Amino acid sequence: MKFCSNCASAVVKRVPPGDNLPRWVCDQCGEIHYQNPRVVVGSIPEFEGKLLLCRRAIEPRYGYWTLPAGFMENDESTAQAALRETLEESGAQIEVGAPFTLISVPRVNQVHLFYRARVLALEFKPGDESLEVALWEEARIPWKDIAFRTVGLTLKHWFADRARGAFGFHAEDIE
Amino acid sequence: MKFCSNCASAVVKRVPPGDNLPRWVCDQCGEIHYQNPRVVVGSIPEFEGKLLLCRRAIEPRYGYWTLPAGFMENDESTAQAALRETLEESGAQIEVGAPFTLISVPRVNQVHLFYRARVLALEFKPGDESLEVALWEEARIPWKDIAFRTVGLTLKHWFADRARGAFGFHAEDIE
Repeated sequence: MKFCSNCASAVVKRVPPGDNLPRWVCDQCGEIHYQNPRVVVGSIPEFEGKLLLCRRAIEPRYGYWTLPAGFMENDESTAQAALRETLEESGAQIEVGAPFTLISVPRVNQVHLFYRARVLALEFKPGDESLEVALWEEARIPWKDIAFRTVGLTLKHWFADRARGAFGFHAEDIE
Repeated sequence: MKFCSNCASAVVKRVPPGDNLPRWVCDQCGEIHYQNPRVVVGSIPEFEGKLLLCRRAIEPRYGYWTLPAGFMENDESTAQAALRETLEESGAQIEVGAPFTLISVPRVNQVHLFYRARVLALEFKPGDESLEVALWEEARIPWKDIAFRTVGLTLKHWFADRARGAFGFHAEDIE
């Protein structure tokens, strides 16, 4: 059972007039409680050809390595979210560059967006959500211990683009 | 006053432990009700050099012209959202191309994403949210009657890129 956040009445799931998808509807106050995908924003922080990864101190994927990333918050832009998440999880100050990957993950109702970024100083400090933070050269990337498919895809695109000498923008979907 | 959608108790806005932003927290069941930005996805449907615009039949900006676009839904990718919204608002079947603009609008907690698109057949039919649908050549675009700044920016980038003979990807923020 679910309740209306406006009036605390029970809500029902049905297709509202003029709509074509079922929604949580409150018959008491008329509010329609939409549910929409969330945006996960991260960065690909580079320092002298190495990339910064964080080892996760939280579930899901505790102990696995990830690019710094997290849910975009209200009152910020996507680039600001990339900056904030990187600082929170790794302590690293970065300069945010161009968007690099945009990957939809409809199974979990998420859109993942990663920005290229430059690490401004070699000062890291794992945040509450990280066990450790480290710079990795391509040959040593812990591919088997990468936390999420969107992170693995983003890293693969990044190294491939570096090899061909031109960084593009990559949009795709994951099933 | 706001209520918990899980247990109907009153919720309070405060910073949860380990967090740094105020959230709607339920002291009864412990649920934290996060609020995040929503993604608006649209297309830039082209047919023989003209672009398809819809005149809005709903608020906000009733009567103004827009590219077909709307809130991304759960269980779909961004490209699927562009296809769906275009069909719903204009009746047009399109082939979705590359992402073209990504514009954050933190003032309203939205991220707008527009895809390049090709109109597959000259068959339009205004949906419930459109008064009319029409193809516009550049010289006749109703610039003063464009519904949203993100749509105006997207159109300007599109015509500028066409003029220089190369379509890029444009990311920016609107205050």
